[in-house]
Amino acid sequence: MGVLRTNVPRLIDHNERRELLAEATWRVIVRDGVAGASVRTIAAEAGQSTGSLRHIFPTHAELLAFALKLVIERATARVAALPPRPTAVETVQEVAAELLPLDRDRRAEMEVYLALFTAANADPKLRVPRDEAHLRMREGARWMIAQLDNGADLAPGTDRELEAARLHALIDGLAAHLIYEGAAADPSWARRVLARHIGSLAG
Amino acid sequence: MGVLRTNVPRLIDHNERRELLAEATWRVIVRDGVAGASVRTIAAEAGQSTGSLRHIFPTHAELLAFALKLVIERATARVAALPPRPTAVETVQEVAAELLPLDRDRRAEMEVYLALFTAANADPKLRVPRDEAHLRMREGARWMIAQLDNGADLAPGTDRELEAARLHALIDGLAAHLIYEGAAADPSWARRVLARHIGSLAG
Repeated sequence: MGVLRTNVPRLIDHNERRELLAEATWRVIVRDGVAGASVRTIAAEAGQSTGSLRHIFPTHAELLAFALKLVIERATARVAALPPRPTAVETVQEVAAELLPLDRDRRAEMEVYLALFTAANADPKLRVPRDEAHLRMREGARWMIAQLDNGADLAPGTDRELEAARLHALIDGLAAHLIYEGAAADPSWARRVLARHIGSLAG
Repeated sequence: MGVLRTNVPRLIDHNERRELLAEATWRVIVRDGVAGASVRTIAAEAGQSTGSLRHIFPTHAELLAFALKLVIERATARVAALPPRPTAVETVQEVAAELLPLDRDRRAEMEVYLALFTAANADPKLRVPRDEAHLRMREGARWMIAQLDNGADLAPGTDRELEAARLHALIDGLAAHLIYEGAAADPSWARRVLARHIGSLAG
């Protein structure tokens, strides 16, 4: 057994390998776009054989879907780890800002998210993970509006579902514009837009 | 000359051919995504030879850039043709709605716009037309905020540039969500969000 073990490459944990491949996928998509994210390119980026990648993700769509799922999981974990804030308005502003590409990691995630969001229009196999991602964002927007509905921070009689749809569209639009402006641009204007928007909901 | 003419295929006007090719490009992108919009596929869709297409658009990026320019020109022409409205709020609501994919033609245009917007992140040659399109939309948002700044429809002391950025992000986010929801969904919620947003600017 001891002799055999030294001749056998270390078996990487299945989940660990999936995550390594997903990270390689992100790097390739950010660099080459979804069109350039072929199984071969991604395998080369991950330092693995194409066959090994196909063993983990039988189809290209499965690999892209997994990368998108990881983006959502990471964003959710970051929001859950935010320290408590003294007011609902500050809490909501911090949560909303966490969903914007305001630093390098969040930019990469958002570029993947936007690229896959668009790719799903043409590829039905990407629609289930895209739909899940969209729904999670909408639920986040509903949660933010509910936090503000405390008798002070949301105007009486507000249509909460309409406000959640408006906040969701605004966040996705701001995210797209920040990606558009590039990593070198100052993103602080988007925080000011969010603060103005959330502050205006009290009416 | 008369004999020659009957043997020579009718020479399509250069501009007419460019527009026919751009329309074929839109159909292919809407059907197959930007990744599927190869010169060969587009030539087949337009019923022309690949060589003929390369004569008009030497590079793929030039063809995509032209398709995007046409989208912007058409949207601009539609806005310019809108009938006059009695109030600034109604005018701005109609202009903003014209920029959303609320019917079949505008959906196709917006799918092209979003696909090329994303593709430009990976392809530098698409960035100049993308930047022009983004700037035109921002100028439209500035114009709308300026229309509302009439002493009644925009709160005193409003930061107009910040509000233009907010309206622009909201419109782009709503457009992406309408594309996401599909042609079969009722898009009237997006009009209600716009009405709520524009109405709220009076403070």
